[in-house]
Amino acid sequence: MLISSARNPRVKFWSSLKSRAGRKKEGRFLVEGARELERALAAGLWPREWLVWPDRLSRAEAGLMEIQPAQSYELSEAAFKKVSYRQNPPGLIGVFDVPERGPEDLPPEPRRVLVAVEIEKPGNLGAMLRSADASGTDAVLVVGDGVDPENPNVIRASTGTVFSLPLAVLDHDGALAWLRERGLWLAAAAPAAPVVYWEADMTGPTAVIIGAEDHGLPPVWLEAADLRLRIPMEGVADSLNASVSAALLLYEVLRQQST
Amino acid sequence: MLISSARNPRVKFWSSLKSRAGRKKEGRFLVEGARELERALAAGLWPREWLVWPDRLSRAEAGLMEIQPAQSYELSEAAFKKVSYRQNPPGLIGVFDVPERGPEDLPPEPRRVLVAVEIEKPGNLGAMLRSADASGTDAVLVVGDGVDPENPNVIRASTGTVFSLPLAVLDHDGALAWLRERGLWLAAAAPAAPVVYWEADMTGPTAVIIGAEDHGLPPVWLEAADLRLRIPMEGVADSLNASVSAALLLYEVLRQQST
Repeated sequence: MLISSARNPRVKFWSSLKSRAGRKKEGRFLVEGARELERALAAGLWPREWLVWPDRLSRAEAGLMEIQPAQSYELSEAAFKKVSYRQNPPGLIGVFDVPERGPEDLPPEPRRVLVAVEIEKPGNLGAMLRSADASGTDAVLVVGDGVDPENPNVIRASTGTVFSLPLAVLDHDGALAWLRERGLWLAAAAPAAPVVYWEADMTGPTAVIIGAEDHGLPPVWLEAADLRLRIPMEGVADSLNASVSAALLLYEVLRQQST
Repeated sequence: MLISSARNPRVKFWSSLKSRAGRKKEGRFLVEGARELERALAAGLWPREWLVWPDRLSRAEAGLMEIQPAQSYELSEAAFKKVSYRQNPPGLIGVFDVPERGPEDLPPEPRRVLVAVEIEKPGNLGAMLRSADASGTDAVLVVGDGVDPENPNVIRASTGTVFSLPLAVLDHDGALAWLRERGLWLAAAAPAAPVVYWEADMTGPTAVIIGAEDHGLPPVWLEAADLRLRIPMEGVADSLNASVSAALLLYEVLRQQST
């Protein structure tokens, strides 16, 4: 089916999925980019619809449509650009159902968990997921009022690892209960803590808890933490990017659990 | 002096400094943002000119103008927006001379050095500098054809640490000679290396060498390296953000040199 007008009602519907409110209302979200789509399909997500800009469709993107057929729409440049959130759009967008993201899909006996608390910047949450994937994190809990994992910039900054990682979206109490039931040690990044992160024993199952760059962790998490850990800051700046903090702690856990 | 037209020749001159070609031709660059400006002044850089958007000037920005007076120009909204590279501009831009960035200003006996080889993305180089600052890196070598440290996005992503870090821009041969003269061990990040980074001895003076995410390190650096180190990749993705790789290696050197 060909859609040429950017004012077509379907185009308006798809375009609404770029906003959190639209995703929440419709229960759908968009994935664009061959690598991100490949990781979504590899994780078992099924597209409801394929949106195609024929002039831009790459061989890799056409291959994905063959692997996983679905109702497809050819869009004009104007219509496609209305739906894409990228300045320089690719040739294919997949429309998917927002997954449940409950705790059911998390592994029963995790060894390394990332808890991302109230992260507001999509690029930061996405980069944290990329670091979590690389460090072999078993489960990710996205907690509190922050960006949703289906935000297009989260998907992009995560390079699609948001689909392969076992990930649940929970409120504070639900996340704490899940972690305690599994006997995980809670290791919270806290700038003023006396203990440096590599001095702590994280050889047992450990959850690394990271807050937003600006506000840090809410009191409930600092109080619940078994370990409050400081990343040394030896320069003029007083903070690290949240995804860098996450990577340092997650890789320290991996180091301790590997050696 | 008040400038209202965005077509004023001075506005065109300042606006040209947003491009690398303009900075190279004129030998000037721009700094915007109170935190970035504060770090530039703290590092001893003197503004040649202050550009002011009076409606937006914050108290912190006005304070910086008092600390370090210079010829100042009031710009209209249209003129200011032509010079600023930010979508949501602040109230003050400083115009500075591009520093020399030769090896003279580097410390004679560094313990931890970052070598950033052919980094093309400004956000990546800036984030690497932020990680270098935090980990107490003594010297940074920016090597080969890549982004220049005066790029506005480098300045922003570095949160202004580009000014406080001892930093030289060198060609490949010059950088290698400088490192060898000081007896530094060269530790290169290499995805296929057999040795994991935390297994290597980096207790002595060590230079961490990081290449671009897409291409990795050129052969000359892989051959020159004393240590080729792998960061374990336990997930579906096959690479980490360059600034995360840099942080992991630099903090491992700090850990080994601290304990």
